[in-house]
Amino acid sequence: MTCTLGKVASYIGAELTGDPGCEVSDLATLESAKPGQISFLSNRKYYRFLKHTKASAVIIKREDLDACPVSSLVVDDPYMSYASVVGLFYPEPEIVPGIHPSAIVSPSASIDGSAAIGPNVIIEDKSVIGAGTFIDSGCVIKSDVTIGSNTRLYPNVVLCHSISIGSRVILHPGVVIGSDGFGIANNKGIWTKIPQIGTVIIGDDVEIGTNTSIDRGALENTLIEQGVKIDNQVQIGHNVHIGAHTAIAGCVAIAGSTTIGKHCMIGGLSAINGHLEIVDNVVITGCSAVGNSINSPGTYSSGIPVTEVRLWRRIVARIRKLDDLARKVAKLEEDIIEKR
Amino acid sequence: MTCTLGKVASYIGAELTGDPGCEVSDLATLESAKPGQISFLSNRKYYRFLKHTKASAVIIKREDLDACPVSSLVVDDPYMSYASVVGLFYPEPEIVPGIHPSAIVSPSASIDGSAAIGPNVIIEDKSVIGAGTFIDSGCVIKSDVTIGSNTRLYPNVVLCHSISIGSRVILHPGVVIGSDGFGIANNKGIWTKIPQIGTVIIGDDVEIGTNTSIDRGALENTLIEQGVKIDNQVQIGHNVHIGAHTAIAGCVAIAGSTTIGKHCMIGGLSAINGHLEIVDNVVITGCSAVGNSINSPGTYSSGIPVTEVRLWRRIVARIRKLDDLARKVAKLEEDIIEKR
Amino acid sequence: MTCTLGKVASYIGAELTGDPGCEVSDLATLESAKPGQISFLSNRKYYRFLKHTKASAVIIKREDLDACPVSSLVVDDPYMSYASVVGLFYPEPEIVPGIHPSAIVSPSASIDGSAAIGPNVIIEDKSVIGAGTFIDSGCVIKSDVTIGSNTRLYPNVVLCHSISIGSRVILHPGVVIGSDGFGIANNKGIWTKIPQIGTVIIGDDVEIGTNTSIDRGALENTLIEQGVKIDNQVQIGHNVHIGAHTAIAGCVAIAGSTTIGKHCMIGGLSAINGHLEIVDNVVITGCSAVGNSINSPGTYSSGIPVTEVRLWRRIVARIRKLDDLARKVAKLEEDIIEKR
Repeated sequence: MTCTLGKVASYIGAELTGDPGCEVSDLATLESAKPGQISFLSNRKYYRFLKHTKASAVIIKREDLDACPVSSLVVDDPYMSYASVVGLFYPEPEIVPGIHPSAIVSPSASIDGSAAIGPNVIIEDKSVIGAGTFIDSGCVIKSDVTIGSNTRLYPNVVLCHSISIGSRVILHPGVVIGSDGFGIANNKGIWTKIPQIGTVIIGDDVEIGTNTSIDRGALENTLIEQGVKIDNQVQIGHNVHIGAHTAIAGCVAIAGSTTIGKHCMIGGLSAINGHLEIVDNVVITGCSAVGNSINSPGTYSSGIPVTEVRLWRRIVARIRKLDDLARKVAKLEEDIIEKR
Repeated sequence: MTCTLGKVASYIGAELTGDPGCEVSDLATLESAKPGQISFLSNRKYYRFLKHTKASAVIIKREDLDACPVSSLVVDDPYMSYASVVGLFYPEPEIVPGIHPSAIVSPSASIDGSAAIGPNVIIEDKSVIGAGTFIDSGCVIKSDVTIGSNTRLYPNVVLCHSISIGSRVILHPGVVIGSDGFGIANNKGIWTKIPQIGTVIIGDDVEIGTNTSIDRGALENTLIEQGVKIDNQVQIGHNVHIGAHTAIAGCVAIAGSTTIGKHCMIGGLSAINGHLEIVDNVVITGCSAVGNSINSPGTYSSGIPVTEVRLWRRIVARIRKLDDLARKVAKLEEDIIEKR
Repeated sequence: MTCTLGKVASYIGAELTGDPGCEVSDLATLESAKPGQISFLSNRKYYRFLKHTKASAVIIKREDLDACPVSSLVVDDPYMSYASVVGLFYPEPEIVPGIHPSAIVSPSASIDGSAAIGPNVIIEDKSVIGAGTFIDSGCVIKSDVTIGSNTRLYPNVVLCHSISIGSRVILHPGVVIGSDGFGIANNKGIWTKIPQIGTVIIGDDVEIGTNTSIDRGALENTLIEQGVKIDNQVQIGHNVHIGAHTAIAGCVAIAGSTTIGKHCMIGGLSAINGHLEIVDNVVITGCSAVGNSINSPGTYSSGIPVTEVRLWRRIVARIRKLDDLARKVAKLEEDIIEKR
């Protein structure tokens, strides 16, 4: 698609400095953009590429305007405006309604006429698929599942029985929702399975990444509220409740029966123990372990960044003797005081 | 299903205090239960909800009997008894034997007449499926696989060639068993693949969670003994041997050729290095890293719980200088001794 | 297959000490090998099994020759030579070209006549499959995907639209390549999705483990160079660039826009933050967190191995007060100096 800078400026509500008739047809990074492409400056790490950019125009904050060597699209939030322009140049492909002849759909399932069901999809008894929803190849929808409108399931997603998915939800390939939680009871050394009779409710506008697993509740339900964004390979245990507009990065593990508030951010490869409560507006940085409930908004960490290995080995040896070291310091303090 | 409290008491061998004719039809948590529902008290965190519960009856230990405001079902292990009652109210759906017309089954495969093979399942040459086993939609069973009786594969499970699965095993969606281990040898900077010619043997009564991967052995076999319970997104390397009745929580990574004993418990997001031996009855708490063999039963940890970020950053800076700190303390001790 | 030791020696270029006519038909570990089997000694942990091995011959370094109680195949690198012998005894099964009748292949896709397309595979518009490539059951290849020659996709792999896969690549079951990166922008508390318009390019001779996810680029591409080996359940974010011949162990998480050099090794369950640069020949040991760019080759760590839990709890309490401890030591040093 080709467009003028003037049209782009009006589409995103930007102040344009430069030729409104200049034609642009794509986006690229500051470093790689060529004439005819739009770029943007959001992350300060890339400021060094601004000076030499070959982009036709850069989406930028007012404070960076003077440093921009080409046309500027001045906005408050360049990253948000960049997102809009991507949507302008790359509109979502239209859904072609219909059920692929290879799909196996139960006669008791209800598929909206505007939904699209891909090849080899299986939809079991009494499941309901909303308007404009697209179920891509190889997905398995077990019985009594409800999916809202304009939701998109990428290939090979599995939805277990009786779960509920909102509207405008995106489920990436390999997502599994509603499998049994890890409910086992130990009887003289032998584990007995606890049947998992709750379900999962996923709110509107939720996005869930590749190969992420969300377990069904044991007795009550697992709840993912509206607007939650979950990255790839996240594991969410049974009865977990995640508040609206919380974002969870890749490979996070959340154990069962934990409640996380709204507008939280959980960094990648962090772990959150079970049966905890975390209030709204909490940020957990990457590689952290949450062992207790968190009652105050704020940022919490326990990840340790790498060090050169020989130094790190000495540090680990010192950590193992940290209790002794602290005792030695206490003893020294006593000795000093005695001498006074 | 509706049932009387008297029947529930006799089903789980409980002492009933209250009306044996009282009708109940479901279970719920102490907090959310309504009349007609049974609840239970097992985790002390939920004791505070006992006083106000609206449940018709609570499964409880004798020591908590006086605090229970409603009928009681007194047992030794409320969690185990709760599991039994769930099974009473929610019996497993019956398997309908037969092979779905869309399944692709090799003529040389052997499917027991009481097994159920779902839509789009693929079963290759010479594989054997036991009595009462249910293979759900989209599973792929490669050649020479053996599966015991009353085992259940949820959708989109992949079993690679020549592996063996016991009876009463449960494999959740997306499980992959028998893929090649990470066997590579470095030849002047270029990695060469080591063909993986072992297999995987999964014992009876094993349960394996969503999207978990278990690699085939390099030369010998990967072994998961009977009664092992594995949660979602666990990674088990080639030649690993896991002893009977060990439980492994979500997102654990176990590197190749490690042996773990019986009745162990491994907490979520822990990592166990390769070529180690861990004896029976070892507990590893969550987010721990096991770097050496463990020769004594007991509980082992190395996870650090989160702290407020500004404090944590100071701590990390101190950790990096911990070796210096320890030297300073040693120097101080010398100085003090000299002065005496 | 049966073979003489003489033939094996000549196949791997080994110096044979022993009977060249001795027949062998398989491989096994030093500990479990029986007569008729070949073994090897590479990892020193297994040296203790050499003395009593029942193998017909052992692939060994010259320095271990005297300790070997049976015939020896003397080589420089026993592990590499063992890999070759495995290939000799267990040749890759031949691909039977053709498209399974249940596969759903777009008329505009181009499938080489020597490729093999398995049951229930879906190949969408304009995708190109090279010579000798095998796509196993249940794989989904979206539109405009290019796959080179002699590549192998195991069951239930998903390749999203427009990605490019090299030749001699191996993708294990459940791999997903080209799903949207975790690109979201926060607008007054609500997350907006950033359309992900880059793609993924996978070089020749890459191997990718079970259930691993590699996201497509946001604007530019995600690049995995030739010869990279990736284990199971790894998560690779958008725009990541991994240099040739780097090896990444299981459950590693690499955040978006990070560049990793050539010939690096990343240990299992490590995390690498986004927007970093790591030079060639860096080794990250397992369970480490990389928080900053790494500019020098070498080995880096931050994992802490487990300790008995009661000691560990005391250590964690001391870590939380490490800043105080360091201040106390500084104070003690001042006091001592004052007194001099």
